[in-house]
Amino acid sequence: MTSEQAPAGMVRVAIDAMGGDNAPAAMVQGALEAIAGGGIVALLVGDQTALEQQVAHLDLSKLPIKIIPSDGVIKEGENPVSALREKPKASISVATQLVKLGHADAAVTMGSTGAAMAVSMFALGTLEGVERPSLGGPIFSIAPKTVVIDLGTNVDCRPAQLLSFGVIGSVLANKLFDVENPRVALLSVGAEEGKGNRQVKEAYDLLKQSGLNFIGNIEGFDVVAGNAEVVVCDGFVGNILMKFSEGMGVVLEGWLLQSLEAHLSEEAAADVAREIRSLTNVVEGAGGGPLLGVDGAVIVGHGRAQATEVAKAIRMAKYVVDIGFVASLKEELKRVHERVSA
Amino acid sequence: MTSEQAPAGMVRVAIDAMGGDNAPAAMVQGALEAIAGGGIVALLVGDQTALEQQVAHLDLSKLPIKIIPSDGVIKEGENPVSALREKPKASISVATQLVKLGHADAAVTMGSTGAAMAVSMFALGTLEGVERPSLGGPIFSIAPKTVVIDLGTNVDCRPAQLLSFGVIGSVLANKLFDVENPRVALLSVGAEEGKGNRQVKEAYDLLKQSGLNFIGNIEGFDVVAGNAEVVVCDGFVGNILMKFSEGMGVVLEGWLLQSLEAHLSEEAAADVAREIRSLTNVVEGAGGGPLLGVDGAVIVGHGRAQATEVAKAIRMAKYVVDIGFVASLKEELKRVHERVSA
Repeated sequence: MTSEQAPAGMVRVAIDAMGGDNAPAAMVQGALEAIAGGGIVALLVGDQTALEQQVAHLDLSKLPIKIIPSDGVIKEGENPVSALREKPKASISVATQLVKLGHADAAVTMGSTGAAMAVSMFALGTLEGVERPSLGGPIFSIAPKTVVIDLGTNVDCRPAQLLSFGVIGSVLANKLFDVENPRVALLSVGAEEGKGNRQVKEAYDLLKQSGLNFIGNIEGFDVVAGNAEVVVCDGFVGNILMKFSEGMGVVLEGWLLQSLEAHLSEEAAADVAREIRSLTNVVEGAGGGPLLGVDGAVIVGHGRAQATEVAKAIRMAKYVVDIGFVASLKEELKRVHERVSA
Repeated sequence: MTSEQAPAGMVRVAIDAMGGDNAPAAMVQGALEAIAGGGIVALLVGDQTALEQQVAHLDLSKLPIKIIPSDGVIKEGENPVSALREKPKASISVATQLVKLGHADAAVTMGSTGAAMAVSMFALGTLEGVERPSLGGPIFSIAPKTVVIDLGTNVDCRPAQLLSFGVIGSVLANKLFDVENPRVALLSVGAEEGKGNRQVKEAYDLLKQSGLNFIGNIEGFDVVAGNAEVVVCDGFVGNILMKFSEGMGVVLEGWLLQSLEAHLSEEAAADVAREIRSLTNVVEGAGGGPLLGVDGAVIVGHGRAQATEVAKAIRMAKYVVDIGFVASLKEELKRVHERVSA
């Protein structure tokens, strides 16, 4: 089996096997779990010696796995652009190049998000109407059918970027939740048109012209209530909200454990308390999310991912390819771009 | 008893008796509750006939209450500036004028915050280094010793405004929580200097020079964890966070009631559920907060306030006067202003 061609129906996923806190072991183990589900060819990109050690106990000729050598890894916290220049053969670069060259259908990384963004922009480019890639998705299970976009990859956004978040979020919500015509809302400090900061007021005008199911401004309360499937905001706000909610979960879990001590068995109290934490935290179920607005399927996950999350991210990559997410997004962006004189 | 002079130790509070959803009844009843605690002269400002009806059953000559006539009221949602021009004798205007002229020590309103801000700016002016009044305070009991400023009165703030929020918040936290040297932090998307949007990066430089106990950037998580006594942010962000937290309380209360149904008596479950709502919501204990940065004591509370909250707001006004809050703030703003070449 080669990386260039895969049997019909198989999705070739290039895996940055060196990125993330638990690489390469978690990446390799995750790939094995993912291929067990079928339909996936795993291209493990990384240090050849290290990866061969990881798979020494396996007969690779019988598995849809291939090792693709790379040289170096870009760590979280490194300046992505200069790191990519110094390490052109880094695992994330090679994995993305495989997508670019058509040798892979998608790439998956648990490494530096900044590096994934930078290399995706350079190698794959962004879709029409998109300046920079973004990240978005559900921020908690309280509103499981709401995506918030952007979550921190873009701050000081121009109004046209918020418009693109609306389009991307709409396609994402449609595909993720199977909602026909997702409600798109701008996060602001009041529901009425004209409420908000300059950025929101200008984006409001663009979104009104977009042909999206734009329902206007919503407030912080509405995010929790799930009053829109797509919440559009600057990454500065989205990131603060996401981490605020995570913090609430941690603090309320502790409080609940104490409050229920007198009433419930330790085990039952822990169950309820654990649930509040999962309610207020990012849905971990998916393992990762697509880098949005990139002209190619690139999935980024948490640096601390273990094998199970890696496997989920790889399956997510297959899903993104299977549903033709990037093509749908490209089409919708083109439609809105033609409609809005931004 | 006249409004011009009050017995030593008495604080004269001008009450906008027409402002708020439950005016004038709640305002009058609240004033009665407040004076019962002693040390307060209540100046009820409003429609004379309406107010006289409210107090018809009382012998005013024996109570520290006086009616000051006004004409008209500015409703929530009216454009404050044009409303003030059209109704120069509106209750909020007259109440604020009493402070300006030295006939009252403080004003209290449950009416339009916008009108209170506008009339305070015009009649009383702002303190040195302050462009516009702001509102700030604890946003939930989870972190009861943390003030967030601004909470929505100022959006698109210039960095110098964020600096003034730091100064104001520091004085507020010092007086409210009796904390010697409150930790002041900028809310951002990463802890390191240089993380954040343009506004935060520029404000960072100013706060570093301020001589305040500036601890740098904090993230959404840290607000919940109470990792600073003063959280400085644009009102756009502060308002969204406050309402997001309120929403969490409502949703989690409902979830908890259901989760505990099988384990606890209805009453016990309701107790725990109610507590989560109060944990996640604005501390209502104070009834209102001072309009910050104004050269005079003006307390604004919720439009939906009932008599009990009105009474608390009036007592809060006395407290603000007793501790010399405005003078302390003036002094600290002057000190920082001299220090920072903003």
